[in-house]
Amino acid sequence: MHVGLFDSGVGGLTVLKELVGEFPNAKFSYLGDTARLPYGNKAPETLRKYSQENMVFLKEKKVEAIVIACHSASSVCLDMEDYQGIPIFNVIAPSCAEALEKSGSKKIGVMATKATIKSSVYPNYIKDLDNKAEVIGQECPLLVPLVEEGLIDDEMTHLALSRYLKSLESTATILLGCTHYPILQDEIQKMAPGKSLINPASSVAEKMRTLWPKSPEGEGQIDIYLTDHAPHFIDHAQRLLGEKITELIHPPSLK
Amino acid sequence: MHVGLFDSGVGGLTVLKELVGEFPNAKFSYLGDTARLPYGNKAPETLRKYSQENMVFLKEKKVEAIVIACHSASSVCLDMEDYQGIPIFNVIAPSCAEALEKSGSKKIGVMATKATIKSSVYPNYIKDLDNKAEVIGQECPLLVPLVEEGLIDDEMTHLALSRYLKSLESTATILLGCTHYPILQDEIQKMAPGKSLINPASSVAEKMRTLWPKSPEGEGQIDIYLTDHAPHFIDHAQRLLGEKITELIHPPSLK
Repeated sequence: MHVGLFDSGVGGLTVLKELVGEFPNAKFSYLGDTARLPYGNKAPETLRKYSQENMVFLKEKKVEAIVIACHSASSVCLDMEDYQGIPIFNVIAPSCAEALEKSGSKKIGVMATKATIKSSVYPNYIKDLDNKAEVIGQECPLLVPLVEEGLIDDEMTHLALSRYLKSLESTATILLGCTHYPILQDEIQKMAPGKSLINPASSVAEKMRTLWPKSPEGEGQIDIYLTDHAPHFIDHAQRLLGEKITELIHPPSLK
Repeated sequence: MHVGLFDSGVGGLTVLKELVGEFPNAKFSYLGDTARLPYGNKAPETLRKYSQENMVFLKEKKVEAIVIACHSASSVCLDMEDYQGIPIFNVIAPSCAEALEKSGSKKIGVMATKATIKSSVYPNYIKDLDNKAEVIGQECPLLVPLVEEGLIDDEMTHLALSRYLKSLESTATILLGCTHYPILQDEIQKMAPGKSLINPASSVAEKMRTLWPKSPEGEGQIDIYLTDHAPHFIDHAQRLLGEKITELIHPPSLK
């Protein structure tokens, strides 16, 4: 079992962490397109081109499934079910289905970056699944920099969260629509007790279970490929994944 | 008088603003390399390559001087005095000279991004000018996102500044080593009264005066070129520069 993932940087590592937890014996190849990050502010056609280039790279590594571990890239590839026969998982579809399933009132809050909220990808996708659903989106532009500073249980983060959670008071279910946000899940839960929080990484892991009902045997392996040097990447990866990373490789530029 | 500037995005607009203030009748061509932002976390050789590509682009526009309106790009091009005969100004050299001139104690604080502090470009450059100088660098990673959110006179920004200014208490002169920080100059001054703040954009404008001692006549003009669509760019530019922007052009990709 060999799964390829890609993101612009460290964000998708929360998805990798969830998948490693679910399939500890699988092989993972993670491509961090650090030369071209961030993905959040790129034009859709640019981002789709980058995503396809990343898929070409992962296919050459002989992966058997591809996970688009980035909400922005997922949003421009929702129509792609496979890449030349390799099944593709995105982080949007499974979490929307889970949010609908768990919310009695069908009133769903979505916390996400500015670009994701502006794209309306969540309300559009959720309403396609259930046109009675109501979606309230909240831009949370400061959460990524705060998480990247390691400011989790911190006064600045609490201040930002208290501002962002105001508009979501009437919802019972909140979807964490950015790969960085699950790192704040405990803080969000403390500030919004009783609300059901949806972590898209768990939704993807669960969906991938349908493809591999039995866990593979053998040793797990994590190879990480970065398109540009990213000094903080390895610190961040090791904080999240422990000592599990097998190899770090700088491939020649994708183009 | 035709001046070309480049930066990865909106940051360099504070430099453009300062130059427009000094030379209101000049023509300016500003290249925002939004397709490849941010520059702060790129490898030095990558960033130098991008900078040279940007210079080729500006030369084709027939500029008579090039301003590297970005601290990260400036730090990898300090040795370049001209590009094929066109004089180059960076934002580091003039501000270091001004900081040394203004500080009696030769103890200079530098507020900058993580990448700029890690590169040691400021202490190295200042000590090359005066080996008796002492430089204290302070990483301020949250200031760019806070400024981009428009949170200037705001509790979160004050909290961040109070943390960042602690290590600089013993300095009398603080160099604002990132193009976004001059937007916070009033807030920083309020929280660090009596300290002399150096805005590198003003230092560049002053240095450029030596090249054009007389102001040109005629109408001013500002052309802006972006390598990728950047929805917030124009809002931001108009907030800073008013209605002075003449044209916004999306050139074909640089590569």
